[in-house]
Amino acid sequence: MSSQDFKLTILGSSAALPANNRNPSSQLLTVDQQHYLIDCGEGTQLQLRRFHVKIQRIKAVFISHLHGDHYFGLLGLLNSMNLLGRKGEIGIVCPSDLKPIIELQMNAGGGRLQFPITYIFTDKVGGETKHLFEDERIVVSGFKLKHRIPCTGFLFRQVVKPRAFNAQFASQFEIPLAEIPKIKAGASFTLNDGTVIPNTDLTLDPPEPKSYAYCTDTRPLESTIETVRGVNLLYHESTFMNADADRAKTTFHSTSSQAATIAKSAGVGQLIIGHFSARYTNLDDMLKEAQDVFPNTVLADEGNEIIIN
Amino acid sequence: MSSQDFKLTILGSSAALPANNRNPSSQLLTVDQQHYLIDCGEGTQLQLRRFHVKIQRIKAVFISHLHGDHYFGLLGLLNSMNLLGRKGEIGIVCPSDLKPIIELQMNAGGGRLQFPITYIFTDKVGGETKHLFEDERIVVSGFKLKHRIPCTGFLFRQVVKPRAFNAQFASQFEIPLAEIPKIKAGASFTLNDGTVIPNTDLTLDPPEPKSYAYCTDTRPLESTIETVRGVNLLYHESTFMNADADRAKTTFHSTSSQAATIAKSAGVGQLIIGHFSARYTNLDDMLKEAQDVFPNTVLADEGNEIIIN
Repeated sequence: MSSQDFKLTILGSSAALPANNRNPSSQLLTVDQQHYLIDCGEGTQLQLRRFHVKIQRIKAVFISHLHGDHYFGLLGLLNSMNLLGRKGEIGIVCPSDLKPIIELQMNAGGGRLQFPITYIFTDKVGGETKHLFEDERIVVSGFKLKHRIPCTGFLFRQVVKPRAFNAQFASQFEIPLAEIPKIKAGASFTLNDGTVIPNTDLTLDPPEPKSYAYCTDTRPLESTIETVRGVNLLYHESTFMNADADRAKTTFHSTSSQAATIAKSAGVGQLIIGHFSARYTNLDDMLKEAQDVFPNTVLADEGNEIIIN
Repeated sequence: MSSQDFKLTILGSSAALPANNRNPSSQLLTVDQQHYLIDCGEGTQLQLRRFHVKIQRIKAVFISHLHGDHYFGLLGLLNSMNLLGRKGEIGIVCPSDLKPIIELQMNAGGGRLQFPITYIFTDKVGGETKHLFEDERIVVSGFKLKHRIPCTGFLFRQVVKPRAFNAQFASQFEIPLAEIPKIKAGASFTLNDGTVIPNTDLTLDPPEPKSYAYCTDTRPLESTIETVRGVNLLYHESTFMNADADRAKTTFHSTSSQAATIAKSAGVGQLIIGHFSARYTNLDDMLKEAQDVFPNTVLADEGNEIIIN
């Protein structure tokens, strides 16, 4: 197992108006070298190229909501995947209104993609988390946020890996090769003299599954606290500083302290804040406000990789 | 009159796949400090910001065709204009299929622009140039190109300015202030003794109106030669080098020599080539191929300003 088996890369950290060299929202979650893209603002494909990401390894894209700064880069990315010869399916987890937007633009361009899209719609995500996506590496559920238009948060949980065979311990017994898959799956092993070697001796605990929660754009919500409780890493938007709390409220956004309060109440491992308003050139004070409430906070800094061990 | 009264700025020079630090197609034509945007690939608003262009001074946008690398940046730009408080109308000269694409995305975002869009559709542009747009600074006509989907070239001609009052020469006569506008408009002036001072003595020739033609994406066309004859500056796409002429043909694009041959046949002042395929990292040989046919050729280099005097 690589120590980088669960990694978040920040591609964009800006609110609606890109400024101060910050790009609109996008993040890449990498689990065992497979990529999952979270939001896809304009220019995301350029950021992916800049950070040397293999775009064909993006297995699914998760779009929180249909404000342009969260999805205007998706069509360009799909087109580039196509030009570069992609054949493999991609999953798009999004509001259902995105499908006709994609199709209309594909049709206008007179082409069609050479790879299939599987859509999973977030329209019915409500107060409870809802299972949306699953593969051999992660399980993703959605939860409702509170913005001017319907908006979904995403909770990514790594799939529990099978127990690893403890070859060092097991070498003292003569275990037929055919038995090893059974042992990995949980079986014990019985020696010729009838002694039972329990599975827990023959195998090692798998690494603790990692978890990541993504919350943008939203007012701070009580309900988020329970949903994200105990995750290793929480991204919570922090569009405004505390002095602009009124502005945050009217635009359905959060402040630095509000984001940090949710992190603290939910007992998460680490908080990352982003979606910064163009009005802030320097973010040092923004970070300090959050750290005053929840010390283990970092800024979403483009190109930054956060590895969860 | 500033010496920079007719200026082209290159914002993007890449073909469909952005690569080698080249961005998708976009150019800015500036006439007397008013901006006209020509194509608007993904990331154009970021390029405009990078080159310190005042986006609210963009009066009209001209979209050649509906391949994404020529318009995927438009929605983001319109959104940013809106966020920054634009109230003034913008013209969008484009295929009519672009209108529902814009509207669908605006509706999905739950907002609407605080400024009006005037659409002018290019659908009926045929073999002859067709008048599309006109204001106090420029007249723009469209002409048909040959690509995989309908595509329009644009010909920008500066409006002939009124004759300037020759104050130095006229100072020897006592000309009432009220007469000056008439003289500027072409009137002669009659002295008290009945002598007629002809208008050509009282005024100076206005500067020669400048012209610019934009041709992308297209196979090389005979018809283009007559359309762009004698323009000061011609942009012609040069997606491929000569060695890839077959590829140019099947993808409905042009090579460097083909672009230069059109420039030469049309007797233009200067040629600028662009829309470079991602396969070319270095463009020196591409430029040389074009210059072998038409020496006064330059590469579309992002951030480059070409001032026509």
